[in-house]
Amino acid sequence: MEFLTARQKIVGTKIFDILSKMPKGGLLHIHLGATVRPDILLNLGLLYPAIHVRASAPITETTIKTTLPIFSALPKEEWTATCSLTDSSYKPDTWVPLQNARNNFSPALGGPEGFDRWVIDAMMINPSEAYGTHNTPDLIWKKFQSTFTVSEGMYGYIPLWTEYIRQFFLSSVEDGISYTEPRMIFFGDFVTGADGRKNVSHRDCLAIFDRVVKEVKEDLTKQGRGDDFLGSRIIYSTLRLVAPEQLEHYLEDCLALAQEFPHLIAGFDLVGAEDSLKPLIHYAEPLLKFIERQKELGLYIPFMFHAGETLGDGSPADMNLYDAILLGTKRIGHGFSLYKHPRLMELCKEREICIEVCPISNEILRLCGSMPMHPLPALMNQGLHVALCSDDPSIFGNMGLSFDFFQVFVASEVNTLATLREFVWDSIRFSSLSDDEKSRAYGMLERQWSKFIQYILTTYGKVEYAH
Amino acid sequence: MEFLTARQKIVGTKIFDILSKMPKGGLLHIHLGATVRPDILLNLGLLYPAIHVRASAPITETTIKTTLPIFSALPKEEWTATCSLTDSSYKPDTWVPLQNARNNFSPALGGPEGFDRWVIDAMMINPSEAYGTHNTPDLIWKKFQSTFTVSEGMYGYIPLWTEYIRQFFLSSVEDGISYTEPRMIFFGDFVTGADGRKNVSHRDCLAIFDRVVKEVKEDLTKQGRGDDFLGSRIIYSTLRLVAPEQLEHYLEDCLALAQEFPHLIAGFDLVGAEDSLKPLIHYAEPLLKFIERQKELGLYIPFMFHAGETLGDGSPADMNLYDAILLGTKRIGHGFSLYKHPRLMELCKEREICIEVCPISNEILRLCGSMPMHPLPALMNQGLHVALCSDDPSIFGNMGLSFDFFQVFVASEVNTLATLREFVWDSIRFSSLSDDEKSRAYGMLERQWSKFIQYILTTYGKVEYAH
Repeated sequence: MEFLTARQKIVGTKIFDILSKMPKGGLLHIHLGATVRPDILLNLGLLYPAIHVRASAPITETTIKTTLPIFSALPKEEWTATCSLTDSSYKPDTWVPLQNARNNFSPALGGPEGFDRWVIDAMMINPSEAYGTHNTPDLIWKKFQSTFTVSEGMYGYIPLWTEYIRQFFLSSVEDGISYTEPRMIFFGDFVTGADGRKNVSHRDCLAIFDRVVKEVKEDLTKQGRGDDFLGSRIIYSTLRLVAPEQLEHYLEDCLALAQEFPHLIAGFDLVGAEDSLKPLIHYAEPLLKFIERQKELGLYIPFMFHAGETLGDGSPADMNLYDAILLGTKRIGHGFSLYKHPRLMELCKEREICIEVCPISNEILRLCGSMPMHPLPALMNQGLHVALCSDDPSIFGNMGLSFDFFQVFVASEVNTLATLREFVWDSIRFSSLSDDEKSRAYGMLERQWSKFIQYILTTYGKVEYAH
Repeated sequence: MEFLTARQKIVGTKIFDILSKMPKGGLLHIHLGATVRPDILLNLGLLYPAIHVRASAPITETTIKTTLPIFSALPKEEWTATCSLTDSSYKPDTWVPLQNARNNFSPALGGPEGFDRWVIDAMMINPSEAYGTHNTPDLIWKKFQSTFTVSEGMYGYIPLWTEYIRQFFLSSVEDGISYTEPRMIFFGDFVTGADGRKNVSHRDCLAIFDRVVKEVKEDLTKQGRGDDFLGSRIIYSTLRLVAPEQLEHYLEDCLALAQEFPHLIAGFDLVGAEDSLKPLIHYAEPLLKFIERQKELGLYIPFMFHAGETLGDGSPADMNLYDAILLGTKRIGHGFSLYKHPRLMELCKEREICIEVCPISNEILRLCGSMPMHPLPALMNQGLHVALCSDDPSIFGNMGLSFDFFQVFVASEVNTLATLREFVWDSIRFSSLSDDEKSRAYGMLERQWSKFIQYILTTYGKVEYAH
């Protein structure tokens, strides 16, 4: 059964209950713009009067299915319109205050709850899209990308963003994730300041990130839960559609940020649909120069490239695996097509390149029909190191890591708790934490794991076989 | 796009035209009961007055969707009923002469053409079943198996069977296949003699097979096309649901047939749904004894086991790969899950075990969502020998081998004519032909291949890139 169809059933199982209590270690592959549940994001949006919404047509029973809500924070002098998006007189693309748009959403379309459904649906992929109308990688990527078009106008507003990041950390901790390395995209100027203007520097974004990490740490330590959160570092990412010269600008930006926030930059990546955007080789020159520049500056910003997130065989996206390894990538994001390449798997083993496998993401983005078709066992049987990751959980509905662990656990007759434990430890081992931090993390994991086993025994001890 | 959805488009492409002219060598994995197009089989059935049809309920607009036509040849004294299957007075399970049932099929249900559609649909898998209502291996296998329930009552009638086999050979030759090793199932007593009684011995079946091979060879030789057909041998198969003691009986039967028809028995196999039936290890004892018995009798009947036709990871069907190799299998039928097992792939390479890969079958039976998800490239990149096969073309609509070659060719950026040529030559190399016969076959292939290249150049020579 496919994940989105099975999701409700999964939540009701004992295995899921157990896995949701399991310490997960680090989360090494997640896009920061898809980390907070859409309903929570919308509720955050409603707290800020600056946030406005618009649509390209009046919303009716017909247009609601195909029209996206677009959000943006506006400067105060632009807070004027109070019309309803569902009114036939609504002038397309007029900004309406969010609270107002919600309250005045036509009762015929469900009123405020109907508004919520419209917005939340536009930020998620549902089963009939994934397995029906958009049942190919190309089609589902269109829907996938449109969810960011909807959400970025909210999470890109700096006051909201601060709470957004906090929410991401807290919900991760809730699922037993004690460390995260989200990919943060630097591209264009979608980030909006408190005053509703697009005047926020990359440095400011990172400073806020830094502050929230510290605040969450302090809060949890005060509650005696210091072990639960070891912190977070970003993987500086831009899109694989910039020109090579533009990339140089981003790489220099990354170097500057790493000099100011050496404890916050875990690595560098290029993101976006591999099948349709530029392959890594397109950027070979600036990327090689980046390595030289690091040496000059005494920095270490490892590559953590997306590669092989494709069904292609010998296609440029498949060939990205070769280039990622040639460029010395420390980890590979997805590596879905890696199982086809025996020599590359050997190299990953020799060079201890960890594969960030995102089972649910791959299934929903139609690289495999269902979890038993996922090539993960091929990588594991080759002895490769794997960290299980959630990729874009707010869009896929796989918040935390419990769902991905569940999918991997039940799709195989050979996986046991010991297998899952291996993933958890590898997620620390292949993180960018220092050796000292890793030692502390392993110690913490040992304590958490003992408590976890104790939970299983206490709760299910009377059942001979929980599986 | 899935095969059944794309089929019509495929037929119209230049690539398909080219591939349909390509010499294919041997067809090493096909089930004899699924080799002849359902419309041709039905037309053959209509030639014999002994063939009758029945249904478990009167056929109406409602029951037609779920009720199977069941066929059987009857002894003359039982040719009585002449009622219509679509009449409300039809007594369930009453045998009606086929010709009569067709002629009297209710005009409201399409008359004779409606009857044909009903019968043909019941012998094939359609896209809405494969990709909609039956979209998992378990569900689609139910439909798959029911198609045999329909067809076996016709092709199991010896006079028809004779023409059925001839039709199989001729249609194979038409698609450039010059040699076949079909799996022939020996199980129960569904074969009916000319007199409509179930009194046909396995020996008689094989003698007829032998005769038709010779007749087709002679006919083609007379037409100056002796090169086009090198013959055919069966792989003696029974079902992996017999008891181990029963299997001993079949193995002895196989030995006896191999003594009388040494030129006709290519190997031995156990067939049926691996996920639900008995694993190979269940039969270890009789199978090992079979090897000893061959030595005693001076025979060589290699195993050609189905193994790993499953999405299971570590499941009994997946473990069949280990047992097939341990038992010394010469080829592996499907080996779909083999890509997960690095050590087993090494062994297949060392021991020159050929993998009979059935791309379209695997897709329709829901082991992969579409061809680009098929693990074939993983096997090829490991250097394994592969023969492309059609498995059950009458059910899947992939008659001949052109469709399977097409699917493999277009799903990859690295496959060229040279790749396909390798499959073709391997299909001879890993056949059970003698070394002398293989030499003759290679010579013949060389001549056919030259003509084929000439065809491409003549027909598409002006087009710079046909692909």
